[in-house]
Amino acid sequence: MSEDERPETEELVTEAPSEREEDEFLPRRELLDQIHEAIAMGDKARLNDLLEPMHAADIADIIERLDPSRRRDFLELYAGEIDGEILSEIDEAIREQVLEQLPPEVLADAVREMDSDDVVDLVEDLDEEDREGILAALDDSDRAAVQQSLTYPEYSAGRLMQSEVVTAPEHWTVGEMIDFLRAEEWLPEQFYHVILVDPRRHPVGYVQLGRMLAAKRDALLGTLREDSFRTISAYAEEGDVAYAFNQYHLISAPVVDKDDRLVGVITIDDAMAVLDEEHEEDILLLAGVGEDSSITDSVTETLRRRIPWLMVNVCTAIVSSLVISIFETTITDFVALAVLMPIVASMGGNAGTQTLTVAVRALATKSLTTGNVWRVVRREAMVGLLNGLTFAVVMGVVAWFWFGGISLAGVIGMAMIVNLAIAALAGVLIPLTLDKLGADPALASGTFVMTMTDVVGFFTFLGLASMVLV
Amino acid sequence: MSEDERPETEELVTEAPSEREEDEFLPRRELLDQIHEAIAMGDKARLNDLLEPMHAADIADIIERLDPSRRRDFLELYAGEIDGEILSEIDEAIREQVLEQLPPEVLADAVREMDSDDVVDLVEDLDEEDREGILAALDDSDRAAVQQSLTYPEYSAGRLMQSEVVTAPEHWTVGEMIDFLRAEEWLPEQFYHVILVDPRRHPVGYVQLGRMLAAKRDALLGTLREDSFRTISAYAEEGDVAYAFNQYHLISAPVVDKDDRLVGVITIDDAMAVLDEEHEEDILLLAGVGEDSSITDSVTETLRRRIPWLMVNVCTAIVSSLVISIFETTITDFVALAVLMPIVASMGGNAGTQTLTVAVRALATKSLTTGNVWRVVRREAMVGLLNGLTFAVVMGVVAWFWFGGISLAGVIGMAMIVNLAIAALAGVLIPLTLDKLGADPALASGTFVMTMTDVVGFFTFLGLASMVLV
Repeated sequence: MSEDERPETEELVTEAPSEREEDEFLPRRELLDQIHEAIAMGDKARLNDLLEPMHAADIADIIERLDPSRRRDFLELYAGEIDGEILSEIDEAIREQVLEQLPPEVLADAVREMDSDDVVDLVEDLDEEDREGILAALDDSDRAAVQQSLTYPEYSAGRLMQSEVVTAPEHWTVGEMIDFLRAEEWLPEQFYHVILVDPRRHPVGYVQLGRMLAAKRDALLGTLREDSFRTISAYAEEGDVAYAFNQYHLISAPVVDKDDRLVGVITIDDAMAVLDEEHEEDILLLAGVGEDSSITDSVTETLRRRIPWLMVNVCTAIVSSLVISIFETTITDFVALAVLMPIVASMGGNAGTQTLTVAVRALATKSLTTGNVWRVVRREAMVGLLNGLTFAVVMGVVAWFWFGGISLAGVIGMAMIVNLAIAALAGVLIPLTLDKLGADPALASGTFVMTMTDVVGFFTFLGLASMVLV
Repeated sequence: MSEDERPETEELVTEAPSEREEDEFLPRRELLDQIHEAIAMGDKARLNDLLEPMHAADIADIIERLDPSRRRDFLELYAGEIDGEILSEIDEAIREQVLEQLPPEVLADAVREMDSDDVVDLVEDLDEEDREGILAALDDSDRAAVQQSLTYPEYSAGRLMQSEVVTAPEHWTVGEMIDFLRAEEWLPEQFYHVILVDPRRHPVGYVQLGRMLAAKRDALLGTLREDSFRTISAYAEEGDVAYAFNQYHLISAPVVDKDDRLVGVITIDDAMAVLDEEHEEDILLLAGVGEDSSITDSVTETLRRRIPWLMVNVCTAIVSSLVISIFETTITDFVALAVLMPIVASMGGNAGTQTLTVAVRALATKSLTTGNVWRVVRREAMVGLLNGLTFAVVMGVVAWFWFGGISLAGVIGMAMIVNLAIAALAGVLIPLTLDKLGADPALASGTFVMTMTDVVGFFTFLGLASMVLV
């Protein structure tokens, strides 16, 4: 049973999946069309039939992808069916619209079903009044758990944890534990470990349920505990929590307060969601898009998020243009400079972005630390210099063949070396500096680096030209 | 016990963690210094003492961060201590160096300890001979499991799964299951569910261990199964597997072959690692850096990864320059064009990157699908147009004040509108096209979009200028 047996079928040879099933995990197009139809017809029964077999997460995705007016019609029909699971899957961006349309008793039922961490996630961005309205649906102890979580800072482990935990003293036997679990009416939806606590509720270890099931009834829980055991401070940042889960292959981890007392537990599925969001944030920030951007934003929402970054970029581009304007007369004399100068800037920008991205990722994954920072900076400087030499030769040859002047070739070669070296240094030093200042290293790094390489590129290229060519 | 109790301490108010403990999960600087010292001294006992309390993942990180010659010295001293856990944590990039230095018997012991998925990960990139050498250490059934996994395509669920699973028929009672587990000598290191199978080994459901522990001995396993149950095809792409785990909050999921028979199980910690790697790949590809780039690469390695992309960029930059060179005489007459043209190109590049990044992420998270693609394209086109109008006004006013010509202001405004609209369309259509062609939408999208916006930007700006200003 415990798997040594394997099907002996021989047809299981290496081969590519027949075709890429890109929509494997997605509601099929036709289903969506049918849903749209049911909404348009106001056919409540049909809508329920269509959605009934679906997972809450997929229903939430469908709600997210409807345009706002159709969503309103949808909720008119479907609001009564929305339960805690669906509600906790719905994206923050549209949650308020959904909450407004839910009948109070449906909302109350949904909230009562949810784990405390999902309730925290639901109410943390609401104003005081709406929050109180929702919390009123909970019984006293659940409400107290949610309020306790809300006392921890945003994006902390305390907000991420659920207060529903299963604990036991280490002197219990497996038999006592099983009897306790069988007698207990109230247990978390899912749990994978029993947390061992001392009488003052300090976690001292944990036991995998699998190990407990395989042990004799009279085995002491204390003897079954895992070798490696880690608690998480309720004040730890959620990004660090996600890192710890990924690094140490944790499935669940106890959360403790300042006095090291157990206050909750974080499970890996929540940590995985955080990891996903943190990545999303990095990639969007690097591209100069507001961190919560989504493909489902409206046009005005999108403009609101993107225009500020473009506004910054127009300002920095004007700075670069000011640098160019210093050399107007040189350009009038040698128009080849105008033709070639974007190459210098573009190569600097690209090389800078490469370094920057690797540095931002290394900071996020904690592989760039005080221990190796100077080695990394030296290495990037060396890479920048060698890149510069390589493309100095390439562009020198191109310029020579194209415009026939050896001095012009020399000028663009020198500018290439300087700009690619600066690009490399800026690419690693700018995110490091932002990190030291406590800012997100992805934030605005791209703009800084690009401005630097544009300004340095135009200045060295045109400056050298004005000295050499005149 | 089951948590209603919460510490009543009042000091748990909202407050920031005393200071950002950035190295919380990292070996501290001093520890690293001591390790370096022990290596330099050849002090084996001291090295063992230092590393003894550390988690395998952290030891692997330390090995990765050593420079290659120091790593060799380290392995001379420490190779005997390397076990399966450490070995499976070591990054592919340096794994070969480590394998070469491991004494055969240490390697054999380590491999025997590992789960089958970790062995697959270890041997899949080795050549036939080295692979056979390692597999020889395994007993027959484990070796067969690994070889079975290796028949599935790279990056498929079949490579990711472990063959160690716990199964039961659904007609078993909880008591029978517990007795079976107690009697079974061999069980997986970690397991969270019992998979219910029919006599032909088709999975039909699964039972959480927690639910089993809470049930009476005579309860049938079939009655305890979870409502939602999903199997994963051994041929599914690992990215889709990670998506499914994150979407449906799976903790473990059974893997089936073409005949729907159970061949293994994937656990969420492996899915989380895949999610992490896929993000990493996206972000590095978007930046034009080879997908396996790491901050610990050597200078030559780094150059080897980055120069090809820069080479592509130098070619596309030359194409843009060719466009500029068409208008050499116009530029000589109106040098203001040379000053302003980089702004048009830069704004296009930035707006294109914004759209591109959102589109690439939406494809990765499956929120951009055939169902909403035209809505998204229309919306981006509208955003592009409105961005264009906004910055047409901004740059028109700037150009007017700076160079005093209303025609020049009109020209740059028009060029802005055209280029930002094109940027938006290119930003969404290029990744969509790459995706349709089966390529990674992040791959080279950036280069395509930038080339497009540079060429279009220079061409419309200078082209309009040559018509209007002359």
